[in-house]
Amino acid sequence: MLKTMLENVKTKSPLVHCITNYVTVTDCANMLIACGGAPVMSDDLLDVEDITSICGGLAINIGTLNQNTIPSMFAAGKKANELGHPVILDPVGAGASALRTATANKLLDEIKFTTIRGNISEIKTLAFGSGTTKGVDADTADAVTEETLDSVIRLAKGLSEKTGAIIAITGAVDIIADIDKAYVIRNGHPMMSQITGSGCMLTVMTAAYLVANPDSPLEATAASICAMGLCGEMAFEKLEKVCGGNSSYRNYLIDAVYSLDGDTLLRGANYEMR
Amino acid sequence: MLKTMLENVKTKSPLVHCITNYVTVTDCANMLIACGGAPVMSDDLLDVEDITSICGGLAINIGTLNQNTIPSMFAAGKKANELGHPVILDPVGAGASALRTATANKLLDEIKFTTIRGNISEIKTLAFGSGTTKGVDADTADAVTEETLDSVIRLAKGLSEKTGAIIAITGAVDIIADIDKAYVIRNGHPMMSQITGSGCMLTVMTAAYLVANPDSPLEATAASICAMGLCGEMAFEKLEKVCGGNSSYRNYLIDAVYSLDGDTLLRGANYEMR
Amino acid sequence: MLKTMLENVKTKSPLVHCITNYVTVTDCANMLIACGGAPVMSDDLLDVEDITSICGGLAINIGTLNQNTIPSMFAAGKKANELGHPVILDPVGAGASALRTATANKLLDEIKFTTIRGNISEIKTLAFGSGTTKGVDADTADAVTEETLDSVIRLAKGLSEKTGAIIAITGAVDIIADIDKAYVIRNGHPMMSQITGSGCMLTVMTAAYLVANPDSPLEATAASICAMGLCGEMAFEKLEKVCGGNSSYRNYLIDAVYSLDGDTLLRGANYEMR
Repeated sequence: MLKTMLENVKTKSPLVHCITNYVTVTDCANMLIACGGAPVMSDDLLDVEDITSICGGLAINIGTLNQNTIPSMFAAGKKANELGHPVILDPVGAGASALRTATANKLLDEIKFTTIRGNISEIKTLAFGSGTTKGVDADTADAVTEETLDSVIRLAKGLSEKTGAIIAITGAVDIIADIDKAYVIRNGHPMMSQITGSGCMLTVMTAAYLVANPDSPLEATAASICAMGLCGEMAFEKLEKVCGGNSSYRNYLIDAVYSLDGDTLLRGANYEMR
Repeated sequence: MLKTMLENVKTKSPLVHCITNYVTVTDCANMLIACGGAPVMSDDLLDVEDITSICGGLAINIGTLNQNTIPSMFAAGKKANELGHPVILDPVGAGASALRTATANKLLDEIKFTTIRGNISEIKTLAFGSGTTKGVDADTADAVTEETLDSVIRLAKGLSEKTGAIIAITGAVDIIADIDKAYVIRNGHPMMSQITGSGCMLTVMTAAYLVANPDSPLEATAASICAMGLCGEMAFEKLEKVCGGNSSYRNYLIDAVYSLDGDTLLRGANYEMR
Repeated sequence: MLKTMLENVKTKSPLVHCITNYVTVTDCANMLIACGGAPVMSDDLLDVEDITSICGGLAINIGTLNQNTIPSMFAAGKKANELGHPVILDPVGAGASALRTATANKLLDEIKFTTIRGNISEIKTLAFGSGTTKGVDADTADAVTEETLDSVIRLAKGLSEKTGAIIAITGAVDIIADIDKAYVIRNGHPMMSQITGSGCMLTVMTAAYLVANPDSPLEATAASICAMGLCGEMAFEKLEKVCGGNSSYRNYLIDAVYSLDGDTLLRGANYEMR
């Protein structure tokens, strides 16, 4: 399953429309290419409907949202919904400002998302209307542990029921849930939190997986997150050999995704169903 | 000739005003420094005329155009024309949306460009008013092959006649033409299409070559494109040694341009005249 | 002292709100993480006050200022002042355009800055109302030499008196001054000028040092600049081993900051007081 998901991305090379923050946009573009997809960035209101129409899916990331790009998110999202394209939301910093929380909630009201991927603090904000964050990072008080895992899974399934979207909560442990089932993924490496954009890159890569695997959004989301986590582990092995820091790690992470094949993913994936 | 062109960039260190997309802007800035030039990015309507006035040339890239930056492109372009600075256009995604196509065409109407550099789908859009693209990449149906080469050269010469600009169509084979002559360049490596921004970086580097070689725009454009292609080959040789992926390749490409000297360019350049 | 300053950043992991240019923003975010801090980028007028309120400090960089982000700089700066957060200004290109010079001067009038960090041409512009620049780089005519060092120190102390801010003039030799005292720092490497963003990255890193060391802004600024310069030297040593260019150097610089510890900083720092 995981293997086929990855290979479908490589074979179909899905074009993904990204409305994403300018902090990590280069890395998002290179990550999309690395996984086998192709990026188009466009965020002007007069441009986004045309661009989303020629793409297979849409990724919306509110990391550096502004008055000009917020209407573009809605226009692109509605057009993608009309066309039946998968749409993924990355609610960066929901809970950290009124504008981010309100925009994320309004997007949930007006756009049908296939997958919502965020850290635990962002997802709690969407689920409960408010939450705590440490800026754009998860608050440590919210950290998912083996003790809190069951309640987080219930939270994810509940939010999936409410929104109709796959809910992906990523962190040290990742939970990917629809209403009924949850993948608990234990791939990844703490070094992934020492670069900017590991979440943003995962979001656009997941969009490519959703486009290439239209009948299995839960599995596609889980496969993308396993793949990224496994690549995070492989990148760290490489980093140790060269005694590098976080900037080299960023390169090795993208490189690892570029080189990952289906068999390696299958062998390295570490997940269970709940 | 090629050698002198490159050495003029290193000696004169031309300052290039870039109005360019935010996806690849860091790489564009580092590439400009790598080749011997210097970047200034500025895209606000109240800022661009001053900035372009202190620079030697202007690069306009419409990759993430928006309602605020489009008027800036026109204002900067007109000021650069007034001052006799070389201006280069990168019509990213022309053909992919109405806004991009219309903006590119209006820029051609109102600004005198020294060079227009795009992929074959973008250039066909400018030549015929419409075209097919795969987002911001060339459509495979448009690919330049040995069979279609003669007709693409005619297309380039014709568009050069219509616009007064050097036309640079880059891809597996590069065609750089004025009304009379065309360079057909066979440097480069397929890996260059596996990173975002190889086209954008080439555009700003070509701007530096144009500024440093004001009397030979055709040769300057060709020299820049040979240099980038050759560096693409050298970067791939390095990549193979370290088993890296596309993110490492991006670094090696910029590194190769940083280290390239005139003699190496002369030896490695692979082109013919048509 | 230097050692404690660095260790305070690692221990407290200060969250820094950055309103910064889109050219170097990814590198700024990764540099903040590398030094032990954490970044949040936000530049919309409706977002910046909330974001700056959850952060410990604010960095304002006018490198790609525009009509939308200029009001955000003022709103965020005033909120940070209200909250007693350290605020640092990077007046990128002051002197290169009327908009940049006017914006920098108006920011000085309305916002209380803890530190102002720029190149000599930018600082001269702030001190004398106008100046010469080579785009966003210092004009060579302004270069700080052993002969001009005393007069530059007087300039810095004078501007510190006028603004109430620590003045940091960075280049081949760095001068960091308050009204009474100046650090003259001779760390660093010429290769730092061969990448885009070494100044921008230094600004956000200095913000983290200011937040983590609230009682010693002069020393915190000097410690940050010593640390960056020393890492510039270490990155060059690594670069020589691999025969890399400026793109690899950018990675090694951030990597070096990631790995730097207090003892290494103490041993490598090269400064005197004037």
